[in-house]
Amino acid sequence: MYNALDWSTDNCPVGLTMEIIGERWTVVVLREVFNGIRRFDDMRTRTHVPRQVLSNRLATLVDHGILRRTPYQEPGARQRFEYRLTEKGLDLYPVLIAIRDWGDKHLTGAEGSPVEVTHRECGALVHTEVRCAAGHAVTPRDAVPRPGPGAQRRNLGRDQPA
Amino acid sequence: MYNALDWSTDNCPVGLTMEIIGERWTVVVLREVFNGIRRFDDMRTRTHVPRQVLSNRLATLVDHGILRRTPYQEPGARQRFEYRLTEKGLDLYPVLIAIRDWGDKHLTGAEGSPVEVTHRECGALVHTEVRCAAGHAVTPRDAVPRPGPGAQRRNLGRDQPA
Repeated sequence: MYNALDWSTDNCPVGLTMEIIGERWTVVVLREVFNGIRRFDDMRTRTHVPRQVLSNRLATLVDHGILRRTPYQEPGARQRFEYRLTEKGLDLYPVLIAIRDWGDKHLTGAEGSPVEVTHRECGALVHTEVRCAAGHAVTPRDAVPRPGPGAQRRNLGRDQPA
Repeated sequence: MYNALDWSTDNCPVGLTMEIIGERWTVVVLREVFNGIRRFDDMRTRTHVPRQVLSNRLATLVDHGILRRTPYQEPGARQRFEYRLTEKGLDLYPVLIAIRDWGDKHLTGAEGSPVEVTHRECGALVHTEVRCAAGHAVTPRDAVPRPGPGAQRRNLGRDQPA
């Protein structure tokens, strides 16, 4: 029987991911880019994120290889940058859709969701599912954790001083 | 053609959700509860979240109906509380697994993941998928946004002063 207390969380992928995207505006910026909004001023217009915060969040996402900056130049203006998702960034799509699903179900209220996402090919609505590799739908109650290849025993000496 | 700039983000489910869980330690606390860690001191031992921060994050999650507090009492000790997921909280499972998936792929490194989640019934590994209601797997490139029932046109007068 797996007991989480026996194991270290130092290399937990949830903790590591939240070190990067664990800030409200970071995910909002990702939402913008997934919605086709690539330019700083357009993000400012849509999100009202303070200028310096937006600048910091974009820099963090570029530093981690989630967004890449590409230059563009409007006639008569100085060169500026657009932000696009890398493959690593595109891999965050299930996170964004899962967050959207939960908000739609629990927070958007009686008027319903402001945006629907449809499958280009068939038009059906898009959502996330938790499934196993054999294709079964999985709820938290059907899920069993076990130590993975990178599991590290918790350092009891350090964590629980006598 | 949907142009995100035409639409308000005020009631966006991603933004609304991130107002609640948009903080690194909040998601780490949820990870703990999904892993069966229900008690304050056990969460402290595993996560090293500062006491006051942990206390605040738990209170926020209880306030939003994601966790519920239930009393328990060890022999000879004063009454304390355990934290359990409500149905609303259990609905965050796809978010947690999607975050875990991404961290596993991009951050845990050569040694691999510290925890694997398996399907109780068949033993296969568990992950999050983005699918449409017709069952097709969907990538960001196959996804088309459109205004939903709660869509609100952006107030151009307010957002773009002359």
